[in-house]
Amino acid sequence: MSAGTPVFLAACRREPVPYTPIWIMRQAGRYLPEYRELRAKVSFDALTRTPQLAAEVTLQPLRRFALDAAILFSDIMTPLQGMGVDLTFEPGPVVREPIRSDAAIEALRPLSPERDVPFVLESIRLIRAAAPRGVPLIGFAGGPFTLFCYLVGGRQSKQFEAARAFLYSDPDAAGRLLERLADAMAAYLAAQATAGAQALMLFESWGGLLAPPQFEQFALRAARRTLAALRSCGVPLIYYLNQGSALLKHLATIEADVIGVDWRSPLDEVRRVLGGLKAVQGNLDPAALFAPPEVLEQEAGRVLHEAGGLPGHIFNLGHGIWPHTDPEAVARLVDVVHERSARAAGAR
Amino acid sequence: MSAGTPVFLAACRREPVPYTPIWIMRQAGRYLPEYRELRAKVSFDALTRTPQLAAEVTLQPLRRFALDAAILFSDIMTPLQGMGVDLTFEPGPVVREPIRSDAAIEALRPLSPERDVPFVLESIRLIRAAAPRGVPLIGFAGGPFTLFCYLVGGRQSKQFEAARAFLYSDPDAAGRLLERLADAMAAYLAAQATAGAQALMLFESWGGLLAPPQFEQFALRAARRTLAALRSCGVPLIYYLNQGSALLKHLATIEADVIGVDWRSPLDEVRRVLGGLKAVQGNLDPAALFAPPEVLEQEAGRVLHEAGGLPGHIFNLGHGIWPHTDPEAVARLVDVVHERSARAAGAR
Repeated sequence: MSAGTPVFLAACRREPVPYTPIWIMRQAGRYLPEYRELRAKVSFDALTRTPQLAAEVTLQPLRRFALDAAILFSDIMTPLQGMGVDLTFEPGPVVREPIRSDAAIEALRPLSPERDVPFVLESIRLIRAAAPRGVPLIGFAGGPFTLFCYLVGGRQSKQFEAARAFLYSDPDAAGRLLERLADAMAAYLAAQATAGAQALMLFESWGGLLAPPQFEQFALRAARRTLAALRSCGVPLIYYLNQGSALLKHLATIEADVIGVDWRSPLDEVRRVLGGLKAVQGNLDPAALFAPPEVLEQEAGRVLHEAGGLPGHIFNLGHGIWPHTDPEAVARLVDVVHERSARAAGAR
Repeated sequence: MSAGTPVFLAACRREPVPYTPIWIMRQAGRYLPEYRELRAKVSFDALTRTPQLAAEVTLQPLRRFALDAAILFSDIMTPLQGMGVDLTFEPGPVVREPIRSDAAIEALRPLSPERDVPFVLESIRLIRAAAPRGVPLIGFAGGPFTLFCYLVGGRQSKQFEAARAFLYSDPDAAGRLLERLADAMAAYLAAQATAGAQALMLFESWGGLLAPPQFEQFALRAARRTLAALRSCGVPLIYYLNQGSALLKHLATIEADVIGVDWRSPLDEVRRVLGGLKAVQGNLDPAALFAPPEVLEQEAGRVLHEAGGLPGHIFNLGHGIWPHTDPEAVARLVDVVHERSARAAGAR
């Protein structure tokens, strides 16, 4: 690790680190009383669109815990509002007119981040100015297929039937919509990097709903289009795939430095399947934060052990932290990960 | 195949068959206009509790399609009502008082099927008397952990947070509840076999939410307890695991003849991981039924191909059929599976 490189960024690049860095998906959110207090006064939508508030929420967990990265407080659907999609949060995103026709696809305007989501870029500048030294900021966007699920389906559903049926009933139109989304997310993430994001992450929450051929043809192709366009940004790229246990081998050559996985794929198997060229991020079961302290410690140790040592592992949960989690458990987890991994590093 | 053995039962036992049998999860249900017509007049709960109606609904798809098995129309929660759980269907099951304490676990009474669910056994007798020759009846129950998810959580949720947290916060109580459920489901399924069910299936809809260690410790241990008790029934046992791609290797020695998997695990990999001692059931993406005929045919062919030939494969979807599916697509699928597999058998 070069002197001064934050531990998180070094780990993304599989460089030597003194301990395993940790951050937590949804670390800024409802499990924190200070978040709930703010949220009681301001709508979710307003929180994401007001730079001072988005920055404040982003920074809240960093005041409590020795986390190794910050992640922009925003929603994966936010840039779609900028593309002309009429959507509300109730509290999950609801698209008033689901996109299922060529005309609706053509009507989506390309994203121009400075014009369409200036408040996101301003949030990033505010966070960078205020974040603790050595704690880099991760920018993010939804994976194109994940956004597609909401746009075609209109709202969250267990199986995203409408979106998945659309892939089979009109694969050409589906491909066109995915390309538009891929290009928009590339522009969005590139602008985030320009504004100061030091790593970029694609959240593919629903790609794991697809059978392998459809995953390759649709979700993966679109994600690769986004990631390939971001290579020149020079910041680490992270691709998180939920429910992706059957799909990991398809990720070995994706244009990302880091692959994030959920709690169901043991990290030793993930590393074996991916080969040696990716860092891995994850993957404690969010439910483990409800265990007694000694069990939580064991479970964290198991994840560290399965990851096979420090270089190229970023500790995280396998999914977003649950709203009822006790912040004390998070404090314990962060300390355990740092202490155990530092001890293991020292023992070499 | 012995003369007269139904093709489905022979396939469960990995005996030679003249073609690949097919049935479809939720084949009796909302995608059929005749089901919707009946359901408009009678509540879901009443349908499952009235033998003449449950039998009628079970037989509906067999009148339309050349399916190779019938499956009892019921709900996985039905036997829990018989154990004293106060639950309603709205339309998903809702448990009025979620079970989260020792007292609540102790209050669950053991299931005595003849006393507690006589209408299910009567439904089975009616179906057996009326089903077409050569079309065996599958009885079923929910996997213990899947039932646990509803009992502890109270209702369907995306992640079943309460149930999964309970495994970590009170593993002893969780284990006791799972044992009770395992024993109740063993009694329930044994009674179904006595009443005439010719194969028995455990639906583990939510076991795939668990990380491998918790799956083994809780869901798999309980399912094995149920299945082991059923070995003496002498009918094929089927274990279906949803979202189980990362867990398949744990199923290689489970006491089931057939392993059912969702659409995300390619059947060639499933067979490789399971070894040669299990038949496999599945696993077309339910979304593929929305494809144009020639694509549906291709996708069905892919599943047949990945299954590696006839012996020991039962064709099915990888999950329940979706309510908006066109029955014409089902007719096409059944014919394609029969024709293609018979042709392949003839070519040998």
